[in-house]
Amino acid sequence: MSPRPFHKKLDLKNGHVDLTHGAGGKATAQLVDELFLAAFDNKWLAQRNDQALLDAPTGRLVFTTDSYVVTPLFFPGGDIGSLSVHGTINDVAMAGARPISLSAGFILEEGLPLADLARIVQSMAKASREAGVPIVTGDTKVVERGKGDGVFINTAGIGVMPLGVVPPSGERAKPGDVVLVSGTLGDHGVTILSKREGLSFETNLTSDSAALHGLVAELVSAVHDIHVLRDPTRGGLATSLNELAHQSGVGFRLDEKAIPIRPEVAAACELLGIDPLYVANEGKLLAICAPGDADRLLGVMRAHPLGREAAIVGTVVEDADRFVQLETKFGGSRVLDWLSAEQLPRIC
Amino acid sequence: MSPRPFHKKLDLKNGHVDLTHGAGGKATAQLVDELFLAAFDNKWLAQRNDQALLDAPTGRLVFTTDSYVVTPLFFPGGDIGSLSVHGTINDVAMAGARPISLSAGFILEEGLPLADLARIVQSMAKASREAGVPIVTGDTKVVERGKGDGVFINTAGIGVMPLGVVPPSGERAKPGDVVLVSGTLGDHGVTILSKREGLSFETNLTSDSAALHGLVAELVSAVHDIHVLRDPTRGGLATSLNELAHQSGVGFRLDEKAIPIRPEVAAACELLGIDPLYVANEGKLLAICAPGDADRLLGVMRAHPLGREAAIVGTVVEDADRFVQLETKFGGSRVLDWLSAEQLPRIC
Repeated sequence: MSPRPFHKKLDLKNGHVDLTHGAGGKATAQLVDELFLAAFDNKWLAQRNDQALLDAPTGRLVFTTDSYVVTPLFFPGGDIGSLSVHGTINDVAMAGARPISLSAGFILEEGLPLADLARIVQSMAKASREAGVPIVTGDTKVVERGKGDGVFINTAGIGVMPLGVVPPSGERAKPGDVVLVSGTLGDHGVTILSKREGLSFETNLTSDSAALHGLVAELVSAVHDIHVLRDPTRGGLATSLNELAHQSGVGFRLDEKAIPIRPEVAAACELLGIDPLYVANEGKLLAICAPGDADRLLGVMRAHPLGREAAIVGTVVEDADRFVQLETKFGGSRVLDWLSAEQLPRIC
Repeated sequence: MSPRPFHKKLDLKNGHVDLTHGAGGKATAQLVDELFLAAFDNKWLAQRNDQALLDAPTGRLVFTTDSYVVTPLFFPGGDIGSLSVHGTINDVAMAGARPISLSAGFILEEGLPLADLARIVQSMAKASREAGVPIVTGDTKVVERGKGDGVFINTAGIGVMPLGVVPPSGERAKPGDVVLVSGTLGDHGVTILSKREGLSFETNLTSDSAALHGLVAELVSAVHDIHVLRDPTRGGLATSLNELAHQSGVGFRLDEKAIPIRPEVAAACELLGIDPLYVANEGKLLAICAPGDADRLLGVMRAHPLGREAAIVGTVVEDADRFVQLETKFGGSRVLDWLSAEQLPRIC
């Protein structure tokens, strides 16, 4: 490919996004070349076509998408860029699949500092590189000032199912099955909320944003028939289990004492008046398996850096009402209802 | 799957989008069930997982994404919904591939009438059904009033390369090759602009928004080695050819007389002071092939409903400057430069 005729380099330090960056002409091409291609740097993007041509995969495909509208754009433990890579990798992985490629679609607001965009793009590039899942195709649109909010990012992801793995799926939870979580709950949502509200706590809260496909690869390799995998993002563990209760036509019984929650998260939740079981996670998964597989699964989780605080937290029960019940620390029991109200807007 | 416990149906006539629809809880689930699943209606979405599990494809994959921010949301010949289906199908098809699946990510602004959203979703469903390309996975986010603009939609698409087809690609134009377009240029962009500006012309302008994968399937089946296929969207034919000139390291020579433009589009462009060669198309493609294949390709195009006004419009030439030159109707010649300025914001 011949070099492109840009007379002046993009000013990534002091420049701002303007409408020409979304017009599809020279300014768009320059933004793509000097920012996106430079950061994501792979052979598919280097083709500079409107699509990427990938090798033929060796199994069934998994396909997923998520848009990210988190505010603020930068938070302890990550930013909208790394979140958009981790979140979509995780949705692919929750099918038991190995993620192979990501797309990235940007909707930028006119006036966004190019320095902010560059920081976000570099964070995506780092997350993608560390995960070994390239961003192979993309798109950029710009909307007028006041018609967006800095940056929105959509990522879609493709994965391949490993041979021999029975696909985990939300309708496969069976009475008697065991529920595990891979670590502490509520870290992401509480971090975002406290940052947004300008709250400061004594301890440092950090998002748990992380790519879970490495952990999942070890789990499905150890137990070929995990019934359900899910990442409890928006709405947290309680919402995910309510969804699964309806998908599988079962109930859940959880043991509050067994659910890992950081003391600083618990304290922040109490101050904020929210329940950590309804708060988003971005680096945790829940797994449901036959009772005979539970100890093995727990062992594999705990041996992985992202699953050190994994725990068995409950069981699947027969329940015509599809209730998620919590046995509290004090020996009582309460239903974790399926909320319709907004608890934490724009958390991811 | 057990029925979901919604006590009252979503009010698709008089209701509005609120932040709960993006919270991931009961209101999100209801929106998904009663609107998206009802309209898109396929076995993948019915799984209600965060990802779709597809069959193993039989060849190389193509992957693409586009976000749609067109304003107004509804326009003669389509809306943001049908556009988001056609546009991404076309980006898959321009690799010579057969599109198999789409994802859909919605970013909704609080306050959007649910009736508008329903109309858009039904239009997407119709476009997807007519194209035979299902929407298999999706996501919905809601941003506060004033942080978005009604609806933004991202679609990503997966396609499979037919066996025996040499993949068309932007760097494969060779001096001596022939350039064809599949029909009249400028229809989409001029329609959007005139609608937006409240201009009324004597004749009815209509977007050409259409899915081109059927046409492409016939083209690649007739000519196995088409060098380049591209849909001249943002920036129109002139911008696409400038991009290709740089990708392939060549120049282009176009014959203005041969370029099909509707008289009403030409008249509107004159009134608006814009050049139809820089105006977006959403149902047209340009093809570049060896001279010996051009007549055959033209014949296949003209035999297809979406290619009736196809024409040979120019040739690829050696040119160290990578210029796109137009031989004008009056016997002169001018360079179609690569614009950096925004001609038509938010056209797609």
